[in-house]
Amino acid sequence: MINTEMEQLGKAPSKIREIFEYGKKRKAEIGEDKVFDFSIGNPNVPAPREVNEAYRELIATHDDIWLHGYTSAAGDLHTRKAVVDNLNQRFGTAFRASNLYMTCGAAASLKITITAMVTPGDEFITFTPFFPEYRVFVETAGARLVTAGTDPDTFQIDFAKLEPLITEKTKAVIVNSPNNPSGVVFPEAAVQQLAALLKEKEKVYRHAIYLISDEPYRELVYDPEIGVPYLTKYYPDTVVCYSFSKSLSLPGERIGYILVPDEADHAADLYAAVAGAGRALGYVCAPSLTQHVIEKCVGQVSDLSVYKTNRDLLYEALSGYGYTCVHPDGAFYLFVKALEEDASAFCERAKAFELLLVPADSFGTPGYVRIAYCVTTDQIRRSLPAFKKLAESYGKI
Amino acid sequence: MINTEMEQLGKAPSKIREIFEYGKKRKAEIGEDKVFDFSIGNPNVPAPREVNEAYRELIATHDDIWLHGYTSAAGDLHTRKAVVDNLNQRFGTAFRASNLYMTCGAAASLKITITAMVTPGDEFITFTPFFPEYRVFVETAGARLVTAGTDPDTFQIDFAKLEPLITEKTKAVIVNSPNNPSGVVFPEAAVQQLAALLKEKEKVYRHAIYLISDEPYRELVYDPEIGVPYLTKYYPDTVVCYSFSKSLSLPGERIGYILVPDEADHAADLYAAVAGAGRALGYVCAPSLTQHVIEKCVGQVSDLSVYKTNRDLLYEALSGYGYTCVHPDGAFYLFVKALEEDASAFCERAKAFELLLVPADSFGTPGYVRIAYCVTTDQIRRSLPAFKKLAESYGKI
Repeated sequence: MINTEMEQLGKAPSKIREIFEYGKKRKAEIGEDKVFDFSIGNPNVPAPREVNEAYRELIATHDDIWLHGYTSAAGDLHTRKAVVDNLNQRFGTAFRASNLYMTCGAAASLKITITAMVTPGDEFITFTPFFPEYRVFVETAGARLVTAGTDPDTFQIDFAKLEPLITEKTKAVIVNSPNNPSGVVFPEAAVQQLAALLKEKEKVYRHAIYLISDEPYRELVYDPEIGVPYLTKYYPDTVVCYSFSKSLSLPGERIGYILVPDEADHAADLYAAVAGAGRALGYVCAPSLTQHVIEKCVGQVSDLSVYKTNRDLLYEALSGYGYTCVHPDGAFYLFVKALEEDASAFCERAKAFELLLVPADSFGTPGYVRIAYCVTTDQIRRSLPAFKKLAESYGKI
Repeated sequence: MINTEMEQLGKAPSKIREIFEYGKKRKAEIGEDKVFDFSIGNPNVPAPREVNEAYRELIATHDDIWLHGYTSAAGDLHTRKAVVDNLNQRFGTAFRASNLYMTCGAAASLKITITAMVTPGDEFITFTPFFPEYRVFVETAGARLVTAGTDPDTFQIDFAKLEPLITEKTKAVIVNSPNNPSGVVFPEAAVQQLAALLKEKEKVYRHAIYLISDEPYRELVYDPEIGVPYLTKYYPDTVVCYSFSKSLSLPGERIGYILVPDEADHAADLYAAVAGAGRALGYVCAPSLTQHVIEKCVGQVSDLSVYKTNRDLLYEALSGYGYTCVHPDGAFYLFVKALEEDASAFCERAKAFELLLVPADSFGTPGYVRIAYCVTTDQIRRSLPAFKKLAESYGKI
């Protein structure tokens, strides 16, 4: 008598949340420092100092009506200007505030964008491994998620696998680079090839095939030689979905944006549909105080050095213990091949060593696990003997 | 090629927003103090002092990971405990934290609740006048909004009109008391009669008919003798949708909740469906810092005396000028009969006197206008001659 699809979604929390909840219980039983919880992508690096200073200063110097009142549905104009100015400066683009729609974070950005685009029978393509909520957002919008396999060693795009999946029904391709859960970044050559393929297919099918760039990890790249191409510059029909969750360590504050460039096909209609979808889904505006904080802090990035330290430590150690790891150029996840075929069984065995890892079946890549290394370096150090023993239990080393 | 329903929603902003935008333009032309903008329900009373103190103190005394990190999808446990403790104390209820699901405000509460309940062919009933976004939320969830006419003089429930509208297809009845836009409060006798009718109909149709109590204006009642009955105590299948927007003057911060009592039909399944709908719609959690503020400030209410002053001033004056006004017991709207049949034409003529009023056609009550008196008392005083001239232009007085 109620919506059983929603009931089932509510009763089957994501695998990540399930392990996270187990971790909370286990820590209460045996002590916080005895459990090595690598389950959740909750940044452990503080927000930049400027963020809390901005909260304090805004509250001290502005009246309540401005601080806490409704903004325009698209977001405060000064905030939107500050965000596009920052983008234009960094990427040589020419966006205006009217291209930007502020949202309650990455999930809202994606859900609103998908809802704005969807028509009956649509398919959205993404690459494995992919963030499992993509399936939820696409399917509950009435469309189908099509997953394109990638190179099994590098998780880079396999164009031979992708090409036949693009059909008359393809509404958009969702790209997530740096990638959750693999940490892989798509280099410029891959982006150019993808853009060329999509342009070709647009001609064949005579309608736009949008590229949705889901990029909450854009700033989380650890080596200066790794560039993250700005996709609107390669392919005009690109919509950018962003969140400040990771760059400013504000995941709970729910703040991000959707960017619809003027060059995109039917840009004005699509922007209107984004506004309509935001309205229909119950988003009135992004949180006002945090919008004002973003205006002041859009150029800031949290100190990411701890993530780089963690990545290097974990990647080196686990590789040395005989694990096969994909080298993560960005984000804060290490993607590791399970030491047996069944990743869930492997994660169960890891629990015996108090290691909480996430099996990647729901990411579209059975046989892998995700290790979220957005934890203290101390936790990484203390966990290494457990990773070693786990490998030994499989006869490795 | 994109979602035209969303495109149209985006291109047809609500009448309220349209007039609000006109007002901004007009103020820039002739000066802020020359335009009497009564279009939007943006509280003009500051948040209680304790709210900004809580923001400041939390930031000064807690670490960033806790302040700005993800909470559980249902909300921070301490926040939920504080909210239900406050409800239990005020209404003699026995809710637990597990009955509560924190949301990004009233619109999110309603959209999530409707999505959690909806099955194909469903109808949701509400009473005229009603907040126009109800139609958007219900129709974009795939259901039909059925509107029950009310007593034309008092806007109280007309049970003779309501009864035949309740059918096999009725999933829920949405009640909004105190009401936007009329300010009307449903007294206990009406609530009792409504509960009795719904119980009877549940027996006839052998399924739950939920009552959705949309109550962002619960605390905005100006006369001590006026009580706002707590609906879960009269009818077990009640789901409460709340927002702190009005009681704490925080409309831009997007913070509210959904309450599913244990007594409600299939309560556990419905709560799960609420969680599933929140997930599917892209709501990850309510803004974390503001959740913590709510934990500290749940018992507070903004100083509402200015609204009472405004209401009395406006109601008396307009009645004196020959307008027919519904006496608003709560909320911050005065609902007035237009001085000609076409309320839009009346609002256009009002513009000539720099009065910005909202025609109530989209509220389901043609011939009426809404005056949002959540403005300064000074604006009310200065606007009175304009209201008088407007009446005179119709040969009143």
